[in-house]
Order: sequence, then structure tokens, then C-alpha cells
Amino acid sequence: MHVPTLIARKRDGAELTRDEIQQVISAFTRGDMPDYQMSALAMAVFFRGMTAEETAALTEAMLRSGSTLKWPAHAPMRVDKHSTGGIGDKTSLVIAPLLACDGVWVPMISGRGLGITGGTLDKLESIPGFRTQLGEDEIYRTVEKTGCALVGQTTGICPADKKLYALRDVTGTVPSIPLITASILSKKLAEGLDRLILDVKHGSGAFMRTYDDANALARSMVGTAKVLGLRASVHINAMNEPTGRAAGNALEVAEAVACLQGRGPADLEEICLNLAAAVSISSREQLRQKLHDGSAWRKFQQIVAVQGGEVSALEKMHLVHRAPVIQEIRAARSGVLARMDAYQVGLAVLELGAGRAKASDPVDFAVGCDEIAKTGTQMRAGDVLCRVHARSESAAGQAGRTVLEGVAWAE
Amino acid sequence: MHVPTLIARKRDGAELTRDEIQQVISAFTRGDMPDYQMSALAMAVFFRGMTAEETAALTEAMLRSGSTLKWPAHAPMRVDKHSTGGIGDKTSLVIAPLLACDGVWVPMISGRGLGITGGTLDKLESIPGFRTQLGEDEIYRTVEKTGCALVGQTTGICPADKKLYALRDVTGTVPSIPLITASILSKKLAEGLDRLILDVKHGSGAFMRTYDDANALARSMVGTAKVLGLRASVHINAMNEPTGRAAGNALEVAEAVACLQGRGPADLEEICLNLAAAVSISSREQLRQKLHDGSAWRKFQQIVAVQGGEVSALEKMHLVHRAPVIQEIRAARSGVLARMDAYQVGLAVLELGAGRAKASDPVDFAVGCDEIAKTGTQMRAGDVLCRVHARSESAAGQAGRTVLEGVAWAE
Repeated sequence: MHVPTLIARKRDGAELTRDEIQQVISAFTRGDMPDYQMSALAMAVFFRGMTAEETAALTEAMLRSGSTLKWPAHAPMRVDKHSTGGIGDKTSLVIAPLLACDGVWVPMISGRGLGITGGTLDKLESIPGFRTQLGEDEIYRTVEKTGCALVGQTTGICPADKKLYALRDVTGTVPSIPLITASILSKKLAEGLDRLILDVKHGSGAFMRTYDDANALARSMVGTAKVLGLRASVHINAMNEPTGRAAGNALEVAEAVACLQGRGPADLEEICLNLAAAVSISSREQLRQKLHDGSAWRKFQQIVAVQGGEVSALEKMHLVHRAPVIQEIRAARSGVLARMDAYQVGLAVLELGAGRAKASDPVDFAVGCDEIAKTGTQMRAGDVLCRVHARSESAAGQAGRTVLEGVAWAE
Repeated sequence: MHVPTLIARKRDGAELTRDEIQQVISAFTRGDMPDYQMSALAMAVFFRGMTAEETAALTEAMLRSGSTLKWPAHAPMRVDKHSTGGIGDKTSLVIAPLLACDGVWVPMISGRGLGITGGTLDKLESIPGFRTQLGEDEIYRTVEKTGCALVGQTTGICPADKKLYALRDVTGTVPSIPLITASILSKKLAEGLDRLILDVKHGSGAFMRTYDDANALARSMVGTAKVLGLRASVHINAMNEPTGRAAGNALEVAEAVACLQGRGPADLEEICLNLAAAVSISSREQLRQKLHDGSAWRKFQQIVAVQGGEVSALEKMHLVHRAPVIQEIRAARSGVLARMDAYQVGLAVLELGAGRAKASDPVDFAVGCDEIAKTGTQMRAGDVLCRVHARSESAAGQAGRTVLEGVAWAE
């Protein structure tokens, strides 16, 4: 394999063979193919795309770069949900225990937040003591105990993806559908799943701005999963306002707890039930029951306990992480709230310190927004549009202005 | 400057500012911008191109990454010729002394061969003792003595180009018109020229296969030179058969010597006179005279002597570098030679060892082809199509077959 020739072929629109892709990923993972060749190839893939066969070969090569979770022959069905990320999206925290209390296993490997999108691991780590970095043996033991593991990528799983994602992040090669497909699916395949539900977002607060882009990514992921033997379905969901009414790490855990106790915002409960039902043998109504009869909430407490978290913290997250400044942002006029832009809320939350501009940044668990008004609400001047939790008055003022830039009214 | 954002902007078709380009090249040259970001940016430039302003800014930034040659106020006019490379192209060896003996100064910085294209420095180094790696002070002294310097890039001139070219070579990002333009012109601008003639080749033996591509590169180079204050003209020349009748290092020096003595192949003399006349105050006929009255030949001998070469070797290059096997390739039929494909001859010469597959390979001065028949010649079965100079019978046989693949006949 002569790498410069291979890059030039992709650059000129040729289709790479499965064997070539396998060799490239293997050489890159070993360190035999330098980063500067992989970043040039990734940029060529951005422009030229990949066929379904190439995308499947890339996904498979990344999967095979490391180990996979292996389950006993008579273990319950394994299912998972993956979302392409959005503002205030705490659905994983609700869906994982909901499915686990329904009798299936949920070995859920999640990521951290980057840019305006929050990460499930960051949210979980706002629960004092909660451990997300488990080894593979610990993952097996945890799943056997609770039916669920809420963990980060282990060192053994998809090392090629870890290396390639870090490179794409600094070389302008993130938004490529085949590369996104391979990155997401290689990790999900490594979980040893029977079923997967994909939640692809589009809109101002999503990575994919348009429905068409989201649809293209959805088709690529479902098609690739099928080729590789994983039964995956997809929901395409709009993300123009935040999911639920809270955005920020501890604030989102508090909202997820409310949802697990059957008293969450309607839109959050709705999307969680839709996604969970897609991979469940239970009906949507049966799942809804488990949110309202305490089963899902008890399961979440068990999961938190087994992963080392303080269960007693869950119902007082506002006190465990209390921001020094809590400021209410109020409506300056009356009318129907027509827009509460997810991107602007995400930006405000990022500026407050709840997210990361780059992968090495720390996150602030306490800050963010809650009591975010939902679009379609009839409001009066002085009503609360959202509450900002901030480290300082000036940060709160800035965040409030950022949120207000995304607010619009209808008569 | 946030480099990933800048790469993403170019990827999405935005125009970079002069200041951004200056910062990128400066950071890359210092080693503060890693290779993997530059290769991704180069690939984005391959797909998106650059505006005339961006190309000029890139050229200027690369020029300013190092030192430039500075000439006394009352020095003669400085001129140079640059060719985009082809098979059997030894025009630099003829044009430099021809112009120098006409009273102008020719501070010619050349490169080495890579792939099927031979390099002027490699050819010159087949002259025993000839030194091509001179420091800037030596270049000044040499030009003052002879009116000419035939040298390689110094460490001080365009370090950004040196680093970027090496990276492009291994990342599939060589064939980009703005990147080629900046690479060539930054070095030519560093020579402190008054006039430049560009020889852009197209055809089977050229880097640009089509006239349209060659024309696009020609326009880019002339336009960029103009913005940066250098008067440049361009000739677009076909390269479907080798220039002259020899290809290979010592074999080409021998042919250049013949041309300097007024007895070179007609096509070689023709192209040399055309290119030289474009930057000369003398007429084409006056220049022709200097090839036929011994002036150019005496000047070449002087240049070789001052740069440490053995002048006595020049008229016996076949003996100085004598390949063990010299095999005649003969026509199997009668007819008019319709095609003697430059690419196939270049490939044969590369296989014989006269060229390099990669930059670190050594070259064999002795091997190559000569007595290459010109297209349009009426030939009879058994006439010599070319002579192969090789290290072994088997290498000669292979080279002969490669050449024959590029031969075609008309009735």
C-alpha cells in the first residue's frame, strides 16, 4: 500500500477497496501512517464522500481496531440509544434506566461534551462519586447487577476512532457523513448490541442544521448498521429549542430525575418514550407506566449506587452544585413565545462554563439555564423566560443577553 | 488565529485574508502549526482553489519565510527561465549560458528530479566535481564571475516552500494550481529577478496532461507574478515526445553540450531559442548566432569551471559515465513514426535508475535513452528507435519494452 497514491485516488473520486481501508486504519492505529496523511485523506473523504461499501468497511476496520464487549449466550437482549447531540438533551439518563428496568441490558458507552453540545459523561459526573471510567470487566459486572452501564469509551474499544476523532477535531474534518457514521457505529457495534435506536437531530441546536443533512446521516447509519448485522432504527428529531427546560450538567441531572419520577417536562418524556419504545418489546404505554410507577426511578438509583454515586444527591442536585448567582431572565413584552433558539441557549451555557471549547477544558457542573420557557407558551411581560445559574453577575448578564438574542414573539 | 476554524472556512469555500495566510505560513515554518493541519488545509485548497489575491498572499508569505538574493544597484538585468518539467528537458543547461554570454545575469535555482521528470541539479552533478549546493555568498561571487549560477535551493531561501513541498509530496496535494504557483514563484521571486519566462508543459510527459490545465497554471503564475512586481511571460509547450533525443542525466548533458556547440537536435535548439528570446534584449537570430559561434559553449565551460566541474569531461560524458549495457531498440516495421510517447520513455528511464521514485533515492548518472527517434520520421524496419543505456541486459530489455509500448506508426 503506497499511501500518497491511495490519498490521490480518493481525492480524484475513486472508490477504495475494503482491504485498502482495513490497511489504512490498521497502519494509522499502529502509528505507521502519520497523522498528516490521515488528515489529508479525511479532507479528501469530506469532499468526495464514501460509497455504502466504503463506509461499512471503514466502520468495520475501526471496530476491529480494538476489543468488543462479549455477552453470555443466554443474556437478555442488549439495546442502546445514540443521539447526535443537542441542547438540553438528557434523554440517555432517562432511557437507560427505563429500558434496564424493563428487562433488557443497556451497555451504554457515551462521550463528553464539545462545543455547545453537552456530554452524558459530564452530566453523570456531576453526581458526587459517580464513576464513568470502568474497565471491561467492571462493565460486565455492572451490567449483570443492574442491567445497565453508563460509561465512557474504554482504552480497548475502538482505539482507531479515538485517534481519528481527535485528529478530525483539529483539522476541520468533523462534518463528513461517512466519517461520522463510522465513528458512531464502530463504538455501538463494539457494545455487542441486538438493537440500536438512533436519534438524529436537525435544527439550530444540532450538528446537522437541515432536515436533508440529518436524513442523509440517518440513511448512512441505518444502511451501514444493516450491512454489519446490527438492527438499527432511526428517529429524526428537530432541535430548534432545548429539550426539556434545563441545560447544564447538574441542572440536567435534576431534570432527568424529575422525568424518571414521572414529573418531567412533556417534551422530554415524549422523546424518551418514543426512542425507548423503538428498541423495546414493551409498548410505549407500558414504558410510560414505568416512568410513573417509580420503577425507572428505582432503577436509576440502583445504577448510580453500583457505579459509586451518592444516591442521596440525586434529589438535591441544586444544592450539591449551587452557582453563586441565579438570575431570572424575564419577558419584556406579552405574546406567544415563537422562538427560544437552541443554539443561543447552548452558546450561553457554553459561555457560562458548562461546556468545553476544546477537549482538554474542564466543565463547571453548577452553571447553566433552567426553567427555560417552551415555545408556543402565552406569556406576559415580566414572566420568567429562563433562570441563569452563573459564577458572577457579569457572566449571568452576558448569558441572559445571549439567550435573549434567540427569543422571538408571535402576536 | 484558530487553525481548525480557518481550515473549515477554506473547506467551505471562504476566501482567506492576506493576514491569515501570512500567519499560517509563518506558524507552519516555525513548527507551531503541525503538519496534520497543513496537509488538511492543502487538501481543502486542492478542492476549493484560491483566488488571485489568496495565491499572491501565499506566494508572498512563502517568499518572506526566508532570505532573498540582493543585487548591486547597477548590476545587469537578472533573468531566469522556469519549466514545469518534462522528459528529456535539458533546456536550462543551454539557456543559462546562452543568456549569460549575452550580458544578463542568470541566478538559476533549480530542483532535483522526482518521478519521471529529470532534475537540472541531477544532470549537472553528473559532471565530475560540479558543485550545485552553494551558499548565498558563493552564489553572488559565482554570478559576478560568470553571469550565471546553476544551483540548488539554499537553506535560507523559502524554507516554507521546502517544508510544504515535502509534505504535499506525501499527502496527495501536489496537483493544486495555487500551491504550484506559490511554490515556483516564491523561489523565483527570491532570486531578485527582473524578468522570468515560464515554460508550462502539457501532454503525456508533463505534469499537466491537458492544454487547459497548463493554460490555467500559466495564467495563475503570470497573474501572481504581476501582482508581486515580477515581469513574467509564459510559453505553453506540448510534451508528448521527449525534448531532443536523449533522456537520462549524463546523456542529457552530452546533448546540451552538442546544442551549445550549434549541433543539437532541431527541436531542442528551437525551444531554447524561443524561451531565451522571451527574456532577452537580443533577437532570436542574435541568440542563435551565439549557439553557433562558440560563445554559449565557451560560457558553459566557464560556468562549469567556476562551479568546480571538470571541463574536460563535457565532451566525453559517454565515457565518464558508461553504462555496462548499451542496447539498440529497432523498429519492427516500416512507416512514419507517429508516436514516441514521452511518458513511456520517462517511465523506462525511471526504471533504469536515472530518476527517483522518492526524494531520498539516489540517481544513476549513466543510464537512460539516447538516439531517440523523432515523430514524423520515415523509418524502415530495423532502423534504431532508440538506444538504451542500462546496468544489465534484463534492465535494458525491460526498458526497451516500456519504450515500445509508447510507439505508434502511421502509413
